[in-house]
Amino acid sequence: MDLERASALTPLGGGRYGVELRPEFAIGGGKPNGGYMLHCLGRAAVAAAAAEGSAHPHPVATGVQYQQSPDLGAAVIETEVTRVGRSVSQVTARLLQDERPHVVARFTLGALAEASAPYWGEVPPVSIAPLEECNSFGGGGGRPDNGTRLAFDPNHSIQFGPDGPSGDGSGELRAWFVRDDGGDIDPVTLLYVCDAMPPATFTVVQSGWVPTLDLTAYVRAIPAPGPLRIRFRVQVIADGFADEVADVWDSEGRLVAQSTQLTALRLPG
Amino acid sequence: MDLERASALTPLGGGRYGVELRPEFAIGGGKPNGGYMLHCLGRAAVAAAAAEGSAHPHPVATGVQYQQSPDLGAAVIETEVTRVGRSVSQVTARLLQDERPHVVARFTLGALAEASAPYWGEVPPVSIAPLEECNSFGGGGGRPDNGTRLAFDPNHSIQFGPDGPSGDGSGELRAWFVRDDGGDIDPVTLLYVCDAMPPATFTVVQSGWVPTLDLTAYVRAIPAPGPLRIRFRVQVIADGFADEVADVWDSEGRLVAQSTQLTALRLPG
Repeated sequence: MDLERASALTPLGGGRYGVELRPEFAIGGGKPNGGYMLHCLGRAAVAAAAAEGSAHPHPVATGVQYQQSPDLGAAVIETEVTRVGRSVSQVTARLLQDERPHVVARFTLGALAEASAPYWGEVPPVSIAPLEECNSFGGGGGRPDNGTRLAFDPNHSIQFGPDGPSGDGSGELRAWFVRDDGGDIDPVTLLYVCDAMPPATFTVVQSGWVPTLDLTAYVRAIPAPGPLRIRFRVQVIADGFADEVADVWDSEGRLVAQSTQLTALRLPG
Repeated sequence: MDLERASALTPLGGGRYGVELRPEFAIGGGKPNGGYMLHCLGRAAVAAAAAEGSAHPHPVATGVQYQQSPDLGAAVIETEVTRVGRSVSQVTARLLQDERPHVVARFTLGALAEASAPYWGEVPPVSIAPLEECNSFGGGGGRPDNGTRLAFDPNHSIQFGPDGPSGDGSGELRAWFVRDDGGDIDPVTLLYVCDAMPPATFTVVQSGWVPTLDLTAYVRAIPAPGPLRIRFRVQVIADGFADEVADVWDSEGRLVAQSTQLTALRLPG
């Protein structure tokens, strides 16, 4: 069950789409992965905007608030196209179960050019050990059966021991993101990639699950074929909250996506 | 006309509040400053959550989508409290004119501790020239009459010449944020501070106004009294979009707020 099939939408009319939240994209506890839900919402947003004449297929800016965690299984995505403009379109999309919103995302869609280079600036790609020296997990929760893999640099990874996950205290994880079938990773899939990593706080402190409260993702370029590299780092843990920042580069070293999220962290003791 | 009075809310019942968008917080073109509108929405979100029993007065995570630019003058803020939880509350707030939404923001509210230190990590404060050596503009659009000032480090500033704004090509601005009356800057006011700076892209490229499409702000700590320091930098300009990141520190060097925004940039030529 790959990501395309796991995010297939059934048009229900009136800007609503049915989706089946699949166990292959569950995290511990049997809840759907946040990036996976965002990916489904992004697909619906692009489809809804296109249906209203938008020429903007790429989610250049996405903001999402996680209100309640839905269950696996059937869900409905409700969309509202608020703007179809010359350079951007904007869409709000809500993931509903039992007609109640669980996840609400706002999308600004644009049209990125193929193989474009930045006009100015860069975020230099980080080095990661060669793929064959990395420790692979299935992507987004570690499932081996969802067609994606995260391959962690041994020097920027976490260990899962009997007391829970632990790491080197650096606050930083680095991994390759790989599609098992070698297929292209499109801009909407970058929404999944941005939130596919385990919490970077695990490198610093052992805790229970670290729920995302609010996440923002920017898609900056259409990825070239091949594995992506991800750096995921926590900057500050304070007052029970942690900010975690992802940078994603394609195989040519171009920055293709950026994200930042605020997570809730219950500290031990 | 200071920020408190310029964001005074009139309860209208049903989670709605009246607000008067003031010319002291206008940018060029006579439109209200984005950070000012976000500040007004934040005040309404906190009030609406409190009215439903929330014990969370601080906007720890805020995401906002700018859909249409409202005019100065009367506006209505409509709120919807979606969660009043143990550790956080969540509120959606919409700025309406003519009953149409122009700006939509999602707030996650929490309770920050007074004078707390981070559990882990830091973003070290940048150096800025002493206040008396800096070039002061009125805050948020350069108005001298709104009770706030931005005082720019001469080495990280922009110049306004006959051909428009220009800078040193660094992509980075640094300034002090000062309240003229020396009063405290509360966590909701940090939403204004996060978006009070002129575009950092002006240091790199002359362009027309640089509208914010989507902005995220995290409030990480309650500021100590005194001026704040702001670093505002653009990382990558590509395909007509630029990401701009703000870090804000208090007088004790603590990181009190972080923001990131995606802006639209029409390049010359």
